Parts: sequence; C-alpha cells; structure tokens
Amino acid sequence: MLILVTYDVSTETPAGRRRLRQVAKACLNYGQRVQKSVFECKVDQAGLEALQRYLLKIICEEEDSLRIYRLTEPLERNVQEFGKFRAVDFEAPLIV
Amino acid sequence: MLILVTYDVSTETPAGRRRLRQVAKACLNYGQRVQKSVFECKVDQAGLEALQRYLLKIICEEEDSLRIYRLTEPLERNVQEFGKFRAVDFEAPLIV
Repeated sequence: MLILVTYDVSTETPAGRRRLRQVAKACLNYGQRVQKSVFECKVDQAGLEALQRYLLKIICEEEDSLRIYRLTEPLERNVQEFGKFRAVDFEAPLIV
Repeated sequence: MLILVTYDVSTETPAGRRRLRQVAKACLNYGQRVQKSVFECKVDQAGLEALQRYLLKIICEEEDSLRIYRLTEPLERNVQEFGKFRAVDFEAPLIV
C-alpha cells in the first residue's frame, strides 16, 4: 500500500532538531521525500506497523505532530504536483 | 471530496514569507490546518479547481513545491494522527 507520512517536529531545541533528522532518516528507509516533512512510502502492513512503531519512539508527542495517510491508488491519478520537486513514480521501471 | 494540500514555500526572502502566509490563508478558506504546511480540505470539483488556480497564482514554481492529494474516505479509517494536534472530524456534527 502507499502511505503519506507528514510531520511537524519542533526545531527550537537541539533535541527537536535531532528528532527531525531521525524521523526523516527513518522515512527514507521506506520511501521517498517529496517535501521537507512529507514522505511517500510503499509498505505492506508489517512495514507500516514497523515504521509507525519506530517513528513513535522518535517523536515527542507533547511537542511534535505525526500523520500517516493511506493514499488512494493509482497514485498518479490522485496527486497533483506543482513546483520544483517531482516525485519518482513507484510503479515505473527502475532504470539502473 | 477530501483533499490534502501540502506545500514547501521558500522562506528565505520576504516574498517567500508572504507567499507562505497567502497559501495558508487560501487553504483556510477550504479546510483545516493539520500541520504547519498541511491542510485537509473538503471540496467539490469546482472548489478543487478554484483552490488550485488560486494557489498556482500565489506560489513561485521555481522555488516552491505544492502537492494536492485526493484522500481515501472515510478519512478517519485512512489517517492515523499522533502528537500534539488532532484534526477536527469533518463529518462530526458541528456544535455551535
């Protein structure tokens, strides 16, 4: 399934900035960054649960906000992207 | 339909900061802010097109990024929210 992970992590403290880096790093293991705090991830149910557990260990629920959306597929018919970043199409053949 | 608007607007210049405020203001007319640069909006097709036209007039496509996702409904079964902000349920009765 395709999910969208969006987060706001407080960057006022060194601890917050470290959490921000850790959240981004965790999400990169599961998908692609499409905006500073927005990731599109392709996961199965186990992957979703693992990512969620990992992110919940990182964030501070009193200061940060984390949202995980299940996206409507096929994604290319349900997202419009404008501006300087274009996401990679998960389904397109990977040219190595 | 329910859409998710996510954006990255460059805040390095006064013009960028103004665009950021304008984008947020525009989105507030259509829905609720769930994170700094993430809005859930309830729109019909005409509303989606109007919001999109308006946002494209505001952003600078060389510097900013705008993404509009169509969300899977019912939303409450397709989003998980953690941390300090809880979105208002669009479908819940409005207590005035």
